[in-house]
Amino acid sequence: MAQKDITNKKLEDLGNKIIKQIEKKENPDIEIPIRALSNVIFDKKAGQLTLGDKTAKRYYFNVAHAKKFMLTLLVASFSKSLLDENIHASIRDMYYNLKRTLGDSNENTVDEQGETDPLIVDLEVALDVLREQLHLTTDRKGIVAGNVVIRDRGDSIDWSKLGSGGWSIPSTVDEIDFKSVDATKVVVVEKNAGFERLHEDKFWQKEKCILIGTGGQPSRGTRLLIQRLNQEHKLPVYVFTDADSYGFYIYSVIKSGSISLAHISDRIATPSAKFLGLTVSDIYKYDLKKCIIKAKEVDIKRAKELLQYEWFKQPKWQKEINLMIEKGIKAEIEALSHRGLKFMSQEYLPDKLKSKDFLD
Amino acid sequence: MAQKDITNKKLEDLGNKIIKQIEKKENPDIEIPIRALSNVIFDKKAGQLTLGDKTAKRYYFNVAHAKKFMLTLLVASFSKSLLDENIHASIRDMYYNLKRTLGDSNENTVDEQGETDPLIVDLEVALDVLREQLHLTTDRKGIVAGNVVIRDRGDSIDWSKLGSGGWSIPSTVDEIDFKSVDATKVVVVEKNAGFERLHEDKFWQKEKCILIGTGGQPSRGTRLLIQRLNQEHKLPVYVFTDADSYGFYIYSVIKSGSISLAHISDRIATPSAKFLGLTVSDIYKYDLKKCIIKAKEVDIKRAKELLQYEWFKQPKWQKEINLMIEKGIKAEIEALSHRGLKFMSQEYLPDKLKSKDFLD
Repeated sequence: MAQKDITNKKLEDLGNKIIKQIEKKENPDIEIPIRALSNVIFDKKAGQLTLGDKTAKRYYFNVAHAKKFMLTLLVASFSKSLLDENIHASIRDMYYNLKRTLGDSNENTVDEQGETDPLIVDLEVALDVLREQLHLTTDRKGIVAGNVVIRDRGDSIDWSKLGSGGWSIPSTVDEIDFKSVDATKVVVVEKNAGFERLHEDKFWQKEKCILIGTGGQPSRGTRLLIQRLNQEHKLPVYVFTDADSYGFYIYSVIKSGSISLAHISDRIATPSAKFLGLTVSDIYKYDLKKCIIKAKEVDIKRAKELLQYEWFKQPKWQKEINLMIEKGIKAEIEALSHRGLKFMSQEYLPDKLKSKDFLD
Repeated sequence: MAQKDITNKKLEDLGNKIIKQIEKKENPDIEIPIRALSNVIFDKKAGQLTLGDKTAKRYYFNVAHAKKFMLTLLVASFSKSLLDENIHASIRDMYYNLKRTLGDSNENTVDEQGETDPLIVDLEVALDVLREQLHLTTDRKGIVAGNVVIRDRGDSIDWSKLGSGGWSIPSTVDEIDFKSVDATKVVVVEKNAGFERLHEDKFWQKEKCILIGTGGQPSRGTRLLIQRLNQEHKLPVYVFTDADSYGFYIYSVIKSGSISLAHISDRIATPSAKFLGLTVSDIYKYDLKKCIIKAKEVDIKRAKELLQYEWFKQPKWQKEINLMIEKGIKAEIEALSHRGLKFMSQEYLPDKLKSKDFLD
């Protein structure tokens, strides 16, 4: 069964179950796994965050639940119509679309987008589908280049022939087909400026890699794409970020998922991803001391939290994070430009990849 | 002479002039037009902001100028090497690259990026070149789709065949060649979500337009591209933003330029651009009252400022802005989804374009 039919069926099942409850004069309910921190666990074997099995029920005949119950069904019904029409919408479009009065009531179904947004995640969890499969888009972010040809909405797109631009990664990458993938690895860069430099130096050609720029914390679409390239094409994934708590956390999210999206880690995390740099040791190893930035209090606080994460428990990581805390320093990938603009593409990254100088 | 040779020559002339001054034992100087508000004027005939003719000199033998003088030359020399090597760099790359000590001194050439950034604009003004021509990139932002084929870095790119993605507009659009342009107008949308909806509905195909999403205030690259399409291909430009002060200001920047970039309005402004919507009147005309957002104090303050701008003096604009102030309201383009997800692409925009319901 195609994914779209599966999602469609799940939405119909949800509706049918409630109709049956009404016919039996039962109190209609929707069962939703709990997404609070108390129900998020780290699955050591899978190497990713995941939800535990606690659930809660949302009832129609409960004054505290009734509005949320109604809105959850409105969101489900809105998604169903998106699937039927085969179009996509942003969550803001959805909010405006659902904002109305019902029957003789003067009360709005919804007054703030903050009321409908969490319900999308509730549906993701309850139905075990991705928001993208409900045709609700997220902001487009991230670019990619490499020797890859895909098919998307009927067009054949060659990621190696997009000039200076690269391909802008859309919200929904579930529907793209890979026609040919000629690469040995995926290199993910935290910053678009870094992507541009590497792209201009034809780094992806020389290193036979797929180059992805995330522009900060990667979008869902970008994380889904990284996982697809890793799982479907068996490409190792290397992450290249600033040497700071925020950069390390970006790596952590790509590798193990995040607390807020723990319910879909199996769809968007890449537990085998490795950290390529920038490490705090690199600052000394590659003579970047001129480019050191003093860490702020919040950086140090965050670094101390990272030390506690199970997936940062390896001695190499502990050493790096402790070094950052002790010295009170951080550095950006652009610091490599201190050694020359092509230093990153021609020396630093090739060296690291060749000597397998990764953190895991 | 190719643009690159022109820029190269201007950088060389700058250096040669200073060498000559040194040989003549004169006090070396660089003459830079003043960029302060006091020297920004609105050129009514051209319909855009521009710099007046006040200039200032930066001297080497002046304790208050010496460091800035030195850094200005370092920036110019860095640009020269980018042109020689034919590579591009971000301004952050440049900052790290220039950060060093000179001679026997222990003092850094530069300690904060805030010291080098304004010097780039100084050079733009002094040499009358664009920063992009100095090979200093800005952040990539904006997407485009339409029946256009371009050539960029040796690749042929068809903007109509990029799937759901569209082409990500690079920092430097000066170097792209238009191979074929099959469109009657350019429609610029403030929001990427709006772009996605219109793109999915094949709006650019049906309306024979080039569709550009700016993702908020347009990047320099996007403004340059809009101007090129307008000037080189004689395409009228229509701007579609939220009905609020920020949206109106985005239109204003595309049309007339901005104070901070007044020195390059002639390169990035499009004085013939027209405003397509969303207007405050549209909220009533298209029955979007459910989607009204209460304007904040800062919105009203900003609206009152806009009323004073010369290019908002036309009666239609005055009426719209006054309506916003009186009613204290604003609305987003997503509000059109209240009337159905395809309302924007199938009714609102075609109606507006057909009836020429623009503000100018």
